[in-house]
Amino acid sequence: MHRQIEHHPDRLLPTDKTVRKIARTLYEGVQNLPIISPHGHTDPAWFATNAPFDNPTDLFVTPDHYIFRMLYSQGVDLAVLGVGQTDTDPRKAWGVFAEHYYLFRGTPTRIWMNYVFKTVFNIDIELNTDTADEYYDIIAAKLSQKEYLPRALFDRFNIELLATTDSPLDDLAHHKTVKKSGWAGRVIPTFRPDPVVDPEFEGFVANIAKLGEICGEDTSSYAGYLSALRNRRAFFIENGATATDHGHPTAFTADLPKADIEALFAKALKGGLNQEEAEYFRGHMLTEMASMSVDDGLVMQIHPGSYRNHNRQLFQKYGRDVGADIPVSTEYVHNLKALLDKHGNDPELTIILFTLDETTYSRELAPLAGHYPALKLGPAWWFHDSPEGMRRYRERVTETAGFYNTVGFNDDTRAFLSIPARHDVARRMDCSFLAHLVCDHRLGETEAHELAQDLSYNLVKSAYKL
Amino acid sequence: MHRQIEHHPDRLLPTDKTVRKIARTLYEGVQNLPIISPHGHTDPAWFATNAPFDNPTDLFVTPDHYIFRMLYSQGVDLAVLGVGQTDTDPRKAWGVFAEHYYLFRGTPTRIWMNYVFKTVFNIDIELNTDTADEYYDIIAAKLSQKEYLPRALFDRFNIELLATTDSPLDDLAHHKTVKKSGWAGRVIPTFRPDPVVDPEFEGFVANIAKLGEICGEDTSSYAGYLSALRNRRAFFIENGATATDHGHPTAFTADLPKADIEALFAKALKGGLNQEEAEYFRGHMLTEMASMSVDDGLVMQIHPGSYRNHNRQLFQKYGRDVGADIPVSTEYVHNLKALLDKHGNDPELTIILFTLDETTYSRELAPLAGHYPALKLGPAWWFHDSPEGMRRYRERVTETAGFYNTVGFNDDTRAFLSIPARHDVARRMDCSFLAHLVCDHRLGETEAHELAQDLSYNLVKSAYKL
Amino acid sequence: MHRQIEHHPDRLLPTDKTVRKIARTLYEGVQNLPIISPHGHTDPAWFATNAPFDNPTDLFVTPDHYIFRMLYSQGVDLAVLGVGQTDTDPRKAWGVFAEHYYLFRGTPTRIWMNYVFKTVFNIDIELNTDTADEYYDIIAAKLSQKEYLPRALFDRFNIELLATTDSPLDDLAHHKTVKKSGWAGRVIPTFRPDPVVDPEFEGFVANIAKLGEICGEDTSSYAGYLSALRNRRAFFIENGATATDHGHPTAFTADLPKADIEALFAKALKGGLNQEEAEYFRGHMLTEMASMSVDDGLVMQIHPGSYRNHNRQLFQKYGRDVGADIPVSTEYVHNLKALLDKHGNDPELTIILFTLDETTYSRELAPLAGHYPALKLGPAWWFHDSPEGMRRYRERVTETAGFYNTVGFNDDTRAFLSIPARHDVARRMDCSFLAHLVCDHRLGETEAHELAQDLSYNLVKSAYKL
Repeated sequence: MHRQIEHHPDRLLPTDKTVRKIARTLYEGVQNLPIISPHGHTDPAWFATNAPFDNPTDLFVTPDHYIFRMLYSQGVDLAVLGVGQTDTDPRKAWGVFAEHYYLFRGTPTRIWMNYVFKTVFNIDIELNTDTADEYYDIIAAKLSQKEYLPRALFDRFNIELLATTDSPLDDLAHHKTVKKSGWAGRVIPTFRPDPVVDPEFEGFVANIAKLGEICGEDTSSYAGYLSALRNRRAFFIENGATATDHGHPTAFTADLPKADIEALFAKALKGGLNQEEAEYFRGHMLTEMASMSVDDGLVMQIHPGSYRNHNRQLFQKYGRDVGADIPVSTEYVHNLKALLDKHGNDPELTIILFTLDETTYSRELAPLAGHYPALKLGPAWWFHDSPEGMRRYRERVTETAGFYNTVGFNDDTRAFLSIPARHDVARRMDCSFLAHLVCDHRLGETEAHELAQDLSYNLVKSAYKL
Repeated sequence: MHRQIEHHPDRLLPTDKTVRKIARTLYEGVQNLPIISPHGHTDPAWFATNAPFDNPTDLFVTPDHYIFRMLYSQGVDLAVLGVGQTDTDPRKAWGVFAEHYYLFRGTPTRIWMNYVFKTVFNIDIELNTDTADEYYDIIAAKLSQKEYLPRALFDRFNIELLATTDSPLDDLAHHKTVKKSGWAGRVIPTFRPDPVVDPEFEGFVANIAKLGEICGEDTSSYAGYLSALRNRRAFFIENGATATDHGHPTAFTADLPKADIEALFAKALKGGLNQEEAEYFRGHMLTEMASMSVDDGLVMQIHPGSYRNHNRQLFQKYGRDVGADIPVSTEYVHNLKALLDKHGNDPELTIILFTLDETTYSRELAPLAGHYPALKLGPAWWFHDSPEGMRRYRERVTETAGFYNTVGFNDDTRAFLSIPARHDVARRMDCSFLAHLVCDHRLGETEAHELAQDLSYNLVKSAYKL
Repeated sequence: MHRQIEHHPDRLLPTDKTVRKIARTLYEGVQNLPIISPHGHTDPAWFATNAPFDNPTDLFVTPDHYIFRMLYSQGVDLAVLGVGQTDTDPRKAWGVFAEHYYLFRGTPTRIWMNYVFKTVFNIDIELNTDTADEYYDIIAAKLSQKEYLPRALFDRFNIELLATTDSPLDDLAHHKTVKKSGWAGRVIPTFRPDPVVDPEFEGFVANIAKLGEICGEDTSSYAGYLSALRNRRAFFIENGATATDHGHPTAFTADLPKADIEALFAKALKGGLNQEEAEYFRGHMLTEMASMSVDDGLVMQIHPGSYRNHNRQLFQKYGRDVGADIPVSTEYVHNLKALLDKHGNDPELTIILFTLDETTYSRELAPLAGHYPALKLGPAWWFHDSPEGMRRYRERVTETAGFYNTVGFNDDTRAFLSIPARHDVARRMDCSFLAHLVCDHRLGETEAHELAQDLSYNLVKSAYKL
């Protein structure tokens, strides 16, 4: 069965003709703006080595939890797709993906994938069982061409800047290679200290020791530990970082007396913290990180509220990041109090809050960001990085926080090829939202054009100090 | 005052002409599909005895908590409507209903009732004080005609299958009668074990004893109790059941060590569990029920999150089901963990989750169902079984779980005559949602037609193994 | 830069031409109805003294936390705006406001302000840095004219009734002055007993003593305290009050045994309650207030769920009401149980519930109000008193509670000049909602007109017994 791929030039724009016309004009004004990707999970090695991607399956299926979680939910064994396997036939796995591609009807994954198939690989027909092999052959053939090498795609995608997310123990060798390479692409690291500030992170104690080693600090004392962290942040800044990122289970913060945090740290080094103590330790470290940001200027991102590795059997078999992270109810007003009491009124500090709990948009996050100088709101995140999710975000956030307490779009992806598709969805949805405001006379058309530029380009640049 | 009844052929379809045209075409393709009603609360006696319904009031007002709760909220005494009374003049009660019918403006109840008045009784004018008697006479006259007997209506409604909800202590005599009657209508039971797995259910201890008696098992031991439950499930399966249903206060599940659950069971038989222990008992029994489903293939439905009998005075006076059940905040991610750790990865098991807490759609339920092979999402339930409720459901669930982790529509009603009206609302709302996706180019029109069939008919059939 | 002010006659009406036409007709029918403002925070002194307002900054910027919180969130120092200062140059402060006016794009504040600028001051150009002085001059000049005195504006705004919110210790002198003045404007007080029923309120112990003094009761005993409260309510009723208002941190209610509440009261008088005891005291007092309402007929308003003075530094520097009140998750079903057990079934009692937690609309509030005779739902409140907030309110509340368990609009504002603007937004949004129901054939056009009148005028009058 051969169907045309769904990829209409007016996709996601409002249906009403009057509104669509405005939305289209707004979109045309921002469609070709450079992409700034201030937060994501691409691999810097791609841009350092510039080696070709292996094959369609390794590129699109095996590493993308959006894709294999949906197939898994419908009974497809992960091993069949090559997840955690080395001996899977990639063409067979691709066939299974193609057979189940209809499952993505109505999801953003299909919008992203169709965008990639159509605009990057120039394919016009829908992916299904009948077209699976044709797809595989076309994509496999192109991946080895020089126009499809990572740096060439980066340039073709019109990416002005791409931030990766990196362990504080990382030597940033790939970032250094990129910088020295002469290639103009700007790929910067982000300081993500979870492995050394979360006592429940795998290998925490060893990580702290390694941190000390790297920095030449005695991390067996709390003072040495803080010093090492400061040292490491400076190293990241040297290598281009402008931000940190924090993936805590909750948004809890604390500001403990010196003796208490030193005692907790000592106990943590023995691996002895219970759950509550670990939460206090993490909470205090968020406040410490904010204090360091006040000093060194790094923008702080907080991504709380994911129950990681919810599926015990899969975690035991495959480890992390196999699509089994599930959002939980998340509280900000009480939890951020300690940090905000200390640094919330500092207009030089920028803390960008994210959520997987949409109920907090209008209830907590917009009121907080619409008041505290240090707070800004990150865009709709992860499960909500979708047309309806973005619509809800703007509808619930704008009236209280306005547009200028938000920070533009984050693609937050490890799927490099989907980056333009994701930014395109965000631009279309923002232009659609603005067009509705124009058509019911809440905004003038001129200011809507200004806002479209701000939401697509200017806000992200200023919020992340890029 | 005589007004035309609101019952337009395009009701609930999108207003925009382009979208409405697509929606109407989609709707025309599914409008006359047979009705499958896999979960509801009709009385099997109606179809066993096929006796005429008594009178308009007993048919529409007295048993329908959607109706009398609204009148009660505006100060109408339940006794006036005949609730819990035997000596109320039904025509007078009908007059009170008619006088207050305007209260239902903007509610699904009016859509359902108008559908019934118009299509079942062929009435063209709106119900109000002036038309109350005319209504009463028309309906009363028809109820005694053979075209209005339960089986005739069942056939006329084009119901392919209707599932009732039954106590494990029920002898299913009515279901047997229906089966033996020669009438082709398919009415099947559903195994709802709350009376014997919830220690806080009225008469729990006696129920367990009766369960033992019925099954010839010694239910004073936990092993005998489990054996009786297995036995009873087999009996339900013999009589056509394909599913169980569980109406717990929360979604809490547990998987207790053998000694612990045996001790709890022993204590429960003495009526001695405190609230926390009762919650553990229920939670463990959900996991046991899932284990039995793995063995016997019954689909499992979980309906949590209703605070039953919230109105103390009314409960003391009238007992259960008088419109005073109120939804509460409901948590799934932590609560289902024990059950999912044990059976969540089994693609042969089907657990259908429902909620009264819409905040869980995008935050918890879609991510869970979009990952675990054993989980599917039931449709918008009870207070949310309404046009806006259905729209919110699709908008919040689809992008993460897709369409194929949902299971079509459930009417969940005891109001037999409203069944076609309720399925009609669901089909209209689903077609409207699909039409929007077509018009902003997220779906092709051909696949929208396929999906309309799936949502109206195919998914329910496969999910409930019908 | 001179731009036309955004203030279109069709603003906020639906974009679709068919729906807009219906909405416009509905709106025309209610646009000029008198304003009833049953809950707000204007200063009765304005109407007693009828003195001119000082200057544009003192009128619009310094007292309005909607305005200065947004500027503060973007790094503007409150002192620069004159908050908590006496020596700020108002024209300079106005300039800062004008410079940042673009921050309000997409917010209700801009809709309200533009309405005031355009219809009250007849200004056609947008406020910005270039027009700041022109604005200041025009407004300052007009404020001294007699058409701009408080009473003249009240009359010009077509306000039929305005309720203020007053301390139980207030002597209502301004209300008395208004009444005796011969001016026809109706300004009534509302009994807000928080200072004497919340043990955590600043000066609670002294307040209780003062209450005793005022009433000639011995408020050192619980019986004397209740008697004083009854006495004070009677005094408010004499002076026109028809309602009470309660701004508690949560919706918790209790109905304690006599000995327990007497013991708590005695301890409270010594300033000795811990947080939990204070919560019990407040909770019990809500139930006492309901009991008194059963006796004296005062309508009861409950406004729970605001974390007051969240910003510690600002509170220490400026005190209350500087834009740092943040909504928190709010629970009603368990919390209201004690009060509802006692008085929920009384159709003569009216308790109007408000929320800052929109998740409770469809989950808790609509089901409660759609059942209990004593409960009604207040309109979208505070952060949600906005176009999108009002839309969500109607979409989530109507299907379960209907229109007739709601009570029309509350402006809840201290910004007197914005009152017509706020009621206008509510009328436009309600008419838009009704027009959608007409266009998808859920309502007839005639009944939509009736409902528009009810939502704009009749319901508020009957709910508040005006």
